[in-house]
Amino acid sequence: MSFTRKDLLGLEDLKASEIHSILDLAESFKEINLRPIKKVPTLRGKTIINLFYEPSTRTKMSFDIAAKRLSADTYSISTKTSSMVKGETLLDTVKNLEAMNPDAIVIRHSASGAPHWLASRLDLSIINAGDGMHEHPTQALLDMLTIRQHKGKLDGLTVAIIGDISHSRVARSNIWGLSKMGANVIVCGPPTMIPKDIDRMPTEVTYNVEEVISYADVLMILRLQKERQKDVLLPSLREYSRLYGITPERLTKAKQDVLIMHPGPINRGVEISPEVADGPYSVILEQVNNGVAVRMAILYLTVGSVGKQE
Amino acid sequence: MSFTRKDLLGLEDLKASEIHSILDLAESFKEINLRPIKKVPTLRGKTIINLFYEPSTRTKMSFDIAAKRLSADTYSISTKTSSMVKGETLLDTVKNLEAMNPDAIVIRHSASGAPHWLASRLDLSIINAGDGMHEHPTQALLDMLTIRQHKGKLDGLTVAIIGDISHSRVARSNIWGLSKMGANVIVCGPPTMIPKDIDRMPTEVTYNVEEVISYADVLMILRLQKERQKDVLLPSLREYSRLYGITPERLTKAKQDVLIMHPGPINRGVEISPEVADGPYSVILEQVNNGVAVRMAILYLTVGSVGKQE
Amino acid sequence: MSFTRKDLLGLEDLKASEIHSILDLAESFKEINLRPIKKVPTLRGKTIINLFYEPSTRTKMSFDIAAKRLSADTYSISTKTSSMVKGETLLDTVKNLEAMNPDAIVIRHSASGAPHWLASRLDLSIINAGDGMHEHPTQALLDMLTIRQHKGKLDGLTVAIIGDISHSRVARSNIWGLSKMGANVIVCGPPTMIPKDIDRMPTEVTYNVEEVISYADVLMILRLQKERQKDVLLPSLREYSRLYGITPERLTKAKQDVLIMHPGPINRGVEISPEVADGPYSVILEQVNNGVAVRMAILYLTVGSVGKQE
Repeated sequence: MSFTRKDLLGLEDLKASEIHSILDLAESFKEINLRPIKKVPTLRGKTIINLFYEPSTRTKMSFDIAAKRLSADTYSISTKTSSMVKGETLLDTVKNLEAMNPDAIVIRHSASGAPHWLASRLDLSIINAGDGMHEHPTQALLDMLTIRQHKGKLDGLTVAIIGDISHSRVARSNIWGLSKMGANVIVCGPPTMIPKDIDRMPTEVTYNVEEVISYADVLMILRLQKERQKDVLLPSLREYSRLYGITPERLTKAKQDVLIMHPGPINRGVEISPEVADGPYSVILEQVNNGVAVRMAILYLTVGSVGKQE
Repeated sequence: MSFTRKDLLGLEDLKASEIHSILDLAESFKEINLRPIKKVPTLRGKTIINLFYEPSTRTKMSFDIAAKRLSADTYSISTKTSSMVKGETLLDTVKNLEAMNPDAIVIRHSASGAPHWLASRLDLSIINAGDGMHEHPTQALLDMLTIRQHKGKLDGLTVAIIGDISHSRVARSNIWGLSKMGANVIVCGPPTMIPKDIDRMPTEVTYNVEEVISYADVLMILRLQKERQKDVLLPSLREYSRLYGITPERLTKAKQDVLIMHPGPINRGVEISPEVADGPYSVILEQVNNGVAVRMAILYLTVGSVGKQE
Repeated sequence: MSFTRKDLLGLEDLKASEIHSILDLAESFKEINLRPIKKVPTLRGKTIINLFYEPSTRTKMSFDIAAKRLSADTYSISTKTSSMVKGETLLDTVKNLEAMNPDAIVIRHSASGAPHWLASRLDLSIINAGDGMHEHPTQALLDMLTIRQHKGKLDGLTVAIIGDISHSRVARSNIWGLSKMGANVIVCGPPTMIPKDIDRMPTEVTYNVEEVISYADVLMILRLQKERQKDVLLPSLREYSRLYGITPERLTKAKQDVLIMHPGPINRGVEISPEVADGPYSVILEQVNNGVAVRMAILYLTVGSVGKQE
C-alpha cells in the first residue's frame, strides 16, 4: 500500500501512486455497501470525531456512514450546538478532543489551511473535509473514482470544471488530483470567478463554455455558492444561468459519452438544468455513492492500517 | 406474516390483517426492552436515517432506540442543522441520501403526503413519522397496542378522540386504524376544530364532551397544538380548558375501566388536568413504552424481513 | 465494591470510601483508552441518554465516549433541538424518556438540585453532569484522580481553588470531595466572588492569591464564566486578570512540584496565561483524559454492576 500518511489534508501534497492506492481500495470497499449486512469489523474500537465548523449534511453523513460501516464509533460536533462559542481557540478545542483518545478528527473549517496547521501539532489523524477556499480532498477523490469507473482511466482525459472557481475548494482539489493522474484540466467561468493565482495551478483557463463543452470528456459543474460570495460578482443569477448554465441545448454540442458531474447540492435551473441533472449523462448520484467508499478507504488508510497501530 | 410492504405511509391504506401482524410482532418485541441486555442482532449492518423536518424529541428518540435495539446503525438529520437550508429540493435531498445505501428513511415533514410522494419514487423503505395534518401511523399503532393490552381486543370498543381534530394527524391515523380493527370511533371537539371533510372518514362526530365521556371505553385526548393554529379558533386557552379539558370532575361520569390516553407532550391544565394525567386511568406512559416496540416491529417488517433482502 | 448507589448526584453525599472505589475503578479503566481496540463489552445492550439543558461540548462528549467504549448505546438531547421548547415539564420529559427503558440519564440543568429531585422520583440511574451552581461531581472526581496520579495521594495536600467560587459548581464539588479525602482546601478570589454561605463548607478562605500560591500543592484555576455573571462584579476582565490571573511571574513563588489545573474551556490571558496553561506544571489535558475514565467508572457502577440488574 503506497499511502502511509497520518493525515489526508489535500491532493496538492499527494503523489499519483498514493491517489491510485486510495482509489483502488475505495473500489474494493464499494461492494460492502451493497451487502445485506453492510458492516465489517475493520475499525472496531476506533473513535472518529466529526468536527464541523461549517454546516454540512451530506459530507458529514457520508463520513459518519463510512466510519460506522467499518464498525468505528463516531461523534459529531457542529459549532452551533457546542461550547466552542465560549471563545476557546481551535487548537485548545482540538487538543481537548485529542485528550479523549480519538483516532481521527474529520474537520471542516472556514479557514484555509486549518487542517494542515492542526495536523502538524497533533499525533492523531486529521482528515480535511473542506477548508475555506483551499481543498476538499475526499470530494475530488470520489470524483476521480466516478470518472475512472466510467472511462476506465483518468490519464489523457479532458475535464472541464465550470463555475465559480475562485471560491471552490472542490475545484482546487480536482485540479491538483486530476492533473497528477494525467488528466488535462480546464477551468471555465466568468473572469470575475477565476482566481488570480490560477497560473500557479496545473490547469488551463477558458471563458468560452460552448467551446469547452464541445471537446471535454467530463463536465464538472460547480454549485453557485451564493452564501459565500461577499461581493456582487454578476448582475444576477439569471445572467449567470444564461451565460454559463448547463442546459440540454448547450449539451447538444458535447461528446456522445460526456459525463456530467456536480458536487451537490445542486441549484436546479441556476448552474444546471433539471433535464441535465437528471439526464442520461449525469453521474451525480454515483458521485454521492462513491463518496462513502472513498471515505471508508481514507479512514482505513489513516486510522486502521496495522502498521500505524503497533 | 401478512405485512409485506416496502413502506409504512399511513393506516388508511392498510388492511386489518396487516395491522394485526404489526401489533402481534410489536407485542413479542416488548420483552426485549425489559432484558438486562436490550439488544438483538436482527438488523445488524442496516442503515436507518431519521430525517426530521419538524422538531421532535420523543418520536425521533423512539425510532432511534428501536433501531439500535435491533442493532441497526442510525443517523439523524434535523433541518435546522443541515445544509438543506441551501434550497435543495426534498427529492434531491432524499435521492442523495439514497445514494449512500441506507435501508430506510424515517421522515417527518410538514407537507401532507410527502412520504407517499417519496415512496413512489424510491426503492428504499419510507416510514412516515408524521406528515402535515395527514397521518402519524406509528402513533396510532402504539395507541392500538396499548388499548389491546388493557382491553384484550379492539373490536367493539368505543374510542372517543377529543380535541383539535382538524390539525391532528394522530386523530386521522387513529380514525382509520381503529375503525379497520372494528372499534367505534367518535371525534369530539369544538365545531371550529372538526375538519370539514369529516364525513369522508369512518367516525361519528359529537360536540358534547360530557356525554361522550359517559359511554366511551377509551378517551384519547389530543394535545392543543398552539404552535400549529394560525387562526384564533377559541377566545382563550382557559375557555378551551373549561369547555373541553378533561378534569377529575368530568371523569366521575366515565366508565369504571375507562382508559385515558394522550400522544404527548401534554399541556398540564389545558387539555388535561394533572390529576387525570397522573391518575389511575392514565396509560400515557405505557403508550410511550409501546412506541419503542411498535417501531421495532415496523423497522423489522420493512427493512429486516429476509424475503426482501434476497 | 463500596459504591452501590443508583445515582451520582454530588460529592457532598458520598463517603470517602465510595470516592476511593470510584477513583480505583477509573484508574483501571484508563488502560482501555490506550488500546488499539478501545472497547469492552461491559455495558452492551444498555441505553444511556445524555439530556443537556445547557450547552456543552466536552462533558457531553466525554460521557458519550465513556459509554460507547463500554459498548452502551447512547442518545443525546440538547434543549435547543428538542420538543422540550413546547412547554412540557422537566419531570414529564424525563418520565417519557424513562418509559423507553433507558438505564441511565446523564443530566445537565441550570436548576441547582434538579438531578436530586428527579432521582428520588425515578427508578433509573440519574447522573449529574452539572446542576446550576450546585455540583459537577464527575469533574471533581477527574480532578482528584489527576491529583492522586501525580502526588500519590490526596490526604494532607493543600489545594487552592482560585476564581469565581460563587458561580462554580466545580468548586463546590471539589470542596466536598477533596475535604472528604483528607485534603486541605482553600478558596481564593475577590470578595464579591466568594459565596456568602462559605462557612458551611469545609474550606478556608483567602483573598491573597500571592500567598496561597506560595504554599499550595495544587492550584485549581476556575474559568471566569462571563456568561453566568448577571451583575458586574469587577470593573473589567483586565482588572480581574491583573489581580487574580495566574501568570509565570506569580508562579515563581510556587512550590517546585505544584500542579496547575483548570476545568476548561480556558480563557487564555484572563484567568490563566498561555505560558502557564501550556507550561510544565499544567495537567489540564490529563484532566480531560481522566474524565473519560472517571465517567466509564460511574456508568459501570450505576448501570452495569450485576447486582443491580438482577
